[in-house]
Amino acid sequence: MRGTMLYGPRDIRFEDREAPTIIEPTDAVIRMAATCVCGSDLWPYRGLQPINGPTPMGHEYCGIVEEVGSAVKSVKPGQFVVGSFATSDNTCPYCQGGYQSSCMHREWISRAQAPVLRVSLADGTLVATPDVPSDDLVPSLLAASDVFGTGWFAADAANVKPGSTVAVVGDGAVGLCAVLAARQMGAERIIAMSRHESRRKLAHEFGATDIVIERGEEGVARIKELTGGIGADSVLECVGTQESMMQAIRSTRPGGYVSYVGVPHGVELNGEELFFAHIHLHGGPAPVRRFLPTLITLVWEGKVNPGKVFDLTLPLNQVAEGYRAMDERRAIKTLLRP
Amino acid sequence: MRGTMLYGPRDIRFEDREAPTIIEPTDAVIRMAATCVCGSDLWPYRGLQPINGPTPMGHEYCGIVEEVGSAVKSVKPGQFVVGSFATSDNTCPYCQGGYQSSCMHREWISRAQAPVLRVSLADGTLVATPDVPSDDLVPSLLAASDVFGTGWFAADAANVKPGSTVAVVGDGAVGLCAVLAARQMGAERIIAMSRHESRRKLAHEFGATDIVIERGEEGVARIKELTGGIGADSVLECVGTQESMMQAIRSTRPGGYVSYVGVPHGVELNGEELFFAHIHLHGGPAPVRRFLPTLITLVWEGKVNPGKVFDLTLPLNQVAEGYRAMDERRAIKTLLRP
Repeated sequence: MRGTMLYGPRDIRFEDREAPTIIEPTDAVIRMAATCVCGSDLWPYRGLQPINGPTPMGHEYCGIVEEVGSAVKSVKPGQFVVGSFATSDNTCPYCQGGYQSSCMHREWISRAQAPVLRVSLADGTLVATPDVPSDDLVPSLLAASDVFGTGWFAADAANVKPGSTVAVVGDGAVGLCAVLAARQMGAERIIAMSRHESRRKLAHEFGATDIVIERGEEGVARIKELTGGIGADSVLECVGTQESMMQAIRSTRPGGYVSYVGVPHGVELNGEELFFAHIHLHGGPAPVRRFLPTLITLVWEGKVNPGKVFDLTLPLNQVAEGYRAMDERRAIKTLLRP
Repeated sequence: MRGTMLYGPRDIRFEDREAPTIIEPTDAVIRMAATCVCGSDLWPYRGLQPINGPTPMGHEYCGIVEEVGSAVKSVKPGQFVVGSFATSDNTCPYCQGGYQSSCMHREWISRAQAPVLRVSLADGTLVATPDVPSDDLVPSLLAASDVFGTGWFAADAANVKPGSTVAVVGDGAVGLCAVLAARQMGAERIIAMSRHESRRKLAHEFGATDIVIERGEEGVARIKELTGGIGADSVLECVGTQESMMQAIRSTRPGGYVSYVGVPHGVELNGEELFFAHIHLHGGPAPVRRFLPTLITLVWEGKVNPGKVFDLTLPLNQVAEGYRAMDERRAIKTLLRP
């Protein structure tokens, strides 16, 4: 079998490695229907996040269960499953509180850009779909594995409710899915911050009511202007830089909510500014497992189509080109078919 | 009339100034029943927060309305009132959202360590008690003006609920009131972090079930130990330093809540650590006005006695000694009687 490895900045190789097998009795092995490249993969790809030698890549996946360990009870071979980028036992106190991505036994999935994947803690990590899906549903089910689940968490963590005024910072796949999630949760007004034509179009399609192309302090001023000087009720930060974080915090009304769902890179928050901003702040790695049953149902019933964030589909063996296209912003997100 | 002025580090003077009068039709003038020294007054007193020349001091107050402006409708001369350290119109969008301390027309009260005080936006700031209180209720009503209201906000902002496991960082008057508030909100377990005998005693009296004397990383380890390795559901940060903030964040379970209610001094939060801590963070100047009706009722019905945080009572003209006693930690909090 061949799988995706990052050797250094912009050095992606699709190379031979042993096919995964059951190791623990709680494992499952999945034959991938599709996998993809994540915005977060671009940090190490661009050399902005150090790696310790050659690193297996990929953490988004869905497909058919091939084999399960002897202790696995909730999924079985032949079922189509979607899982989170973080494994979880779904029974520890953190999981029970809905924070499966901080499970006490969490492992990060990291070998998913490959045709076959071993998933540990299968019972607590994987969710089976009602049936084997038709091929057109696969992109949206794959999106639920991370990007849609993360966008959903962004809206949930920022307390989006029916009637809310929402702003979304970031027009990557997560930001676009956050727009979609906010719409599903009944937001009345959704301001997407984007300066890219194709992304603006998708933001509108997903439910954005307004587009702001300005960034930084100008972006903040525009949000204030659009909200009658008040600020947004909920601001969903889907980038992870100092600028995007401050833009989010300063666009929010006192008493409002800021969520942040991309790993912050080099972000430092000044306590005093945060204090007088008077906002609620919540974020972290999205507990996708909490939302998966809901997200799968929404996709299955055709109510949402988050798979539209994939504007490039390639055979898995062209994964290096998939990274390049996203790095150069020729693609929002690349889907890979084994 | 004489009022309290800070001239520089540890230089408090009680000196002549003109008695306040009605300026705006929305003002009220109050004859103080009692005022006090706030923990936050110690920052400039100690020279840790710069002042621009001689600065009038005091922002906690209760007393009898002497006069109101022509537009004031909700309070009248002869009534006993309690107000917040931040004035509010109680009608703007921020006030309506419960964030009166970020009112669009907010002013900070700053001349309350005096026998008479002008309060602007009287209708939206002051709350009258059911009757003129007996003298023994005055300390607890005064506490509602800031320290009890702030402790209450700490518990509210950290989502304290019946059955919660709560930790309180800081054993000043606000921290102690936060213990009291958490108890009122039904917390099952309240861990107070304190190393001072007299404060520990009051913490127990206010409802603390456990005391942790360790600080910093050792304090975090102790909280983890006391919570079976899980961390607290809610941690109430009532100090405002880098150490206390990190202690709070690291003592909280993923998915848990951290509140912070003292102005942070020199605090910088690392985005990545905050992200993986997976906590909710909320704080700011306490919107005391939101809670005043509840707090006054609790005091009036004898259900709480937050006035116990005042362990030193002095005549107002000895205000300088009141500051000294708190600075040297001989007193938790000084009540001043005009």
